Amino acid sequence: MLPFELVEYRDRVKRTLESMGQLGIETLLVTNPANMCWLTGYDGWSFYVHQMVIVSAALDEPLWVGRLMDANAARVTTYLKPESIYGYPDKYVQSTERHPMNYVSDLLKEKGLAGGSVGVEMETYYFTAACFTTLLTDLTDAKLKDATGLVNWQKIIKSPQEIIYERQAAEIVDAMMTAGINAIEPGVRQCDAVAEIYRVMASGTPEFGGEYSSFAPMLPTGEGTSTPHLTWTDAPFKTGEATIIETSGVRKRYNCPMARTVHLGKPPQKLADTEKVVVEGLNNAIEAAKPGVTAEEVEAVWSKTIAAHGIEKESRIGYSTGLNYPPDWGEATLSLRPGDTTVLQENMVIHIIPGIWMDDWGIEISDCILVTPNGGEAFCKYPRKLVVKD
Amino acid sequence: MLPFELVEYRDRVKRTLESMGQLGIETLLVTNPANMCWLTGYDGWSFYVHQMVIVSAALDEPLWVGRLMDANAARVTTYLKPESIYGYPDKYVQSTERHPMNYVSDLLKEKGLAGGSVGVEMETYYFTAACFTTLLTDLTDAKLKDATGLVNWQKIIKSPQEIIYERQAAEIVDAMMTAGINAIEPGVRQCDAVAEIYRVMASGTPEFGGEYSSFAPMLPTGEGTSTPHLTWTDAPFKTGEATIIETSGVRKRYNCPMARTVHLGKPPQKLADTEKVVVEGLNNAIEAAKPGVTAEEVEAVWSKTIAAHGIEKESRIGYSTGLNYPPDWGEATLSLRPGDTTVLQENMVIHIIPGIWMDDWGIEISDCILVTPNGGEAFCKYPRKLVVKD
Repeated sequence: MLPFELVEYRDRVKRTLESMGQLGIETLLVTNPANMCWLTGYDGWSFYVHQMVIVSAALDEPLWVGRLMDANAARVTTYLKPESIYGYPDKYVQSTERHPMNYVSDLLKEKGLAGGSVGVEMETYYFTAACFTTLLTDLTDAKLKDATGLVNWQKIIKSPQEIIYERQAAEIVDAMMTAGINAIEPGVRQCDAVAEIYRVMASGTPEFGGEYSSFAPMLPTGEGTSTPHLTWTDAPFKTGEATIIETSGVRKRYNCPMARTVHLGKPPQKLADTEKVVVEGLNNAIEAAKPGVTAEEVEAVWSKTIAAHGIEKESRIGYSTGLNYPPDWGEATLSLRPGDTTVLQENMVIHIIPGIWMDDWGIEISDCILVTPNGGEAFCKYPRKLVVKD
Repeated sequence: MLPFELVEYRDRVKRTLESMGQLGIETLLVTNPANMCWLTGYDGWSFYVHQMVIVSAALDEPLWVGRLMDANAARVTTYLKPESIYGYPDKYVQSTERHPMNYVSDLLKEKGLAGGSVGVEMETYYFTAACFTTLLTDLTDAKLKDATGLVNWQKIIKSPQEIIYERQAAEIVDAMMTAGINAIEPGVRQCDAVAEIYRVMASGTPEFGGEYSSFAPMLPTGEGTSTPHLTWTDAPFKTGEATIIETSGVRKRYNCPMARTVHLGKPPQKLADTEKVVVEGLNNAIEAAKPGVTAEEVEAVWSKTIAAHGIEKESRIGYSTGLNYPPDWGEATLSLRPGDTTVLQENMVIHIIPGIWMDDWGIEISDCILVTPNGGEAFCKYPRKLVVKD
């Protein structure tokens, strides 16, 4: 049932404990759902209520804490012993009288973990401000310490099995992109093209199924291509307009993202010209993504390429990706941008997405790559170009 | 382009300002994406980075603040003037050196809104602990006040146009459930049934398209039906096993959720017996959902019905729903459970979902209802029963 061997999970916990030791954190409260899954296998759409995995050298194995009705999901999807799984009663859910962190604090006290240095992920979607202030009030003997990124950084180099899942996710997103772009024709409703993307996302391939992407398919069209995160409407596609598709295939929660731009009819010259620059810059950045090179050096290769053509881009051009849950497939660690001196290492997985968004138009052509000694290896096969349907 | 008349948005802002006045809040920082959309129309999958709408009586209209690349999405989807839209540079994104709330604090100072009482949504997914501590450090002249639920509660009674969207969403989820249950057959892969659900979710009806649900379709099967929030795998469905489908149709971001359980082959007696009790209890709760009745009284009708059959349920049986983004379609206001004395009013929309989860099996049959003087009116037409495919 588990997507990885038990020994891989044990190694992840061991490395997390080592990192905690280096940072002087005795107990770690892991609330990022991707981090919870990476450490224990836990997988369910239950992150809309509070849940966490507790890691401490004083425990035999991590503890899972969540809503009582989700405790069976922890029994089904993790390697944890039943006695390591704690479900809080429903009276804690969305209540103005009590908070799930009251339950967590009581549990930490019972386990003798309520003192010393307690790490919390201050900058993670599902660790709200109220989680923090509740723990602060309840854990009077502890010192809360920011542990944002502690587990995220452990995930940045992918294991052989993780890379297998990335490759499977890539097969799925190649098929999704093909289905989506095939469906885009003048007069077809945007929602009907997206239906094809979703169908393939779930169905996957004959050999293995797909899972939900960490984003809904993004599908800006026409003037909407001036911005990246618009989704679709039920308006029909029109000749003379561009559409951007950005989506990911997912296997065992590993995302392989891709973006392409398609134009119905002959594209305007500025779009065709920008395509050439973007593809050249992307190719150069992918080639540069070798072990030993820094994140900002990869970005500089891109910047230099496009500067020669008079184009500028303010935002980062890529980030580490992999195992994740909505609303993001990025890992919030490495970013390809000036100032990020992270040194690339073999088997990192990076989504390079140098989107260009102008006043009323834009273009996105991206690829998810594996860092190898020969430079970036794109996971996907979909042609790296502006697709023109004439 | 906007899904509501401008006058409706103006009224929403006015009511929000009134509520702020009553609670002594001068400036409100709205970070819940559903609340942002409800106040301004803003719609994009950009909530994975920090963004907000600022409401204050000192402003002509709310301000939108988000990432620079998403500012065009605010121009495309909201009624706000260009000068009310602020985009922060990418150097604030997932940086360890600066936080988007530093930018927000600077903007509040520039606007003269950095003093007095500033309301923040302490318990909302995308307002992280670090957002709070950053504002606390930066806004030395302000008093931060918890405004969780302030906007949520304004949304609880639906307008005529909102109810139209709920009815359209209901048509979509009826079609999704039909497609999903039709696809479930022994030997069919779970992922292929989910592909059908997704296809209809996006495609909608010939008259109007669908949008992304605030949850991925949940599809526990076999022993997995003992817990509600598992998604699908690529394993085949088996005769002798039950599958729960819980999903929503969405129109203009309004969710209409529904759950049904389907059994392949003759169901075991305990499942058939429990079906009868659940349907009777659900029917009684729906009938009881009239204006003037409290949330806990509706739950008591359910509890009394099932107690007569020797069944107990610990968790709430329903909640307010409507406009929302992942990861939840609930509004985190009214809950049908003991202790919730909220008085039901006409045109509230409630998802009544009395799921029963036992050690290794479970059943969910739910309906999303409109509160009317005659009791709850179910939005959907799908038969309220355990579906048996023999």
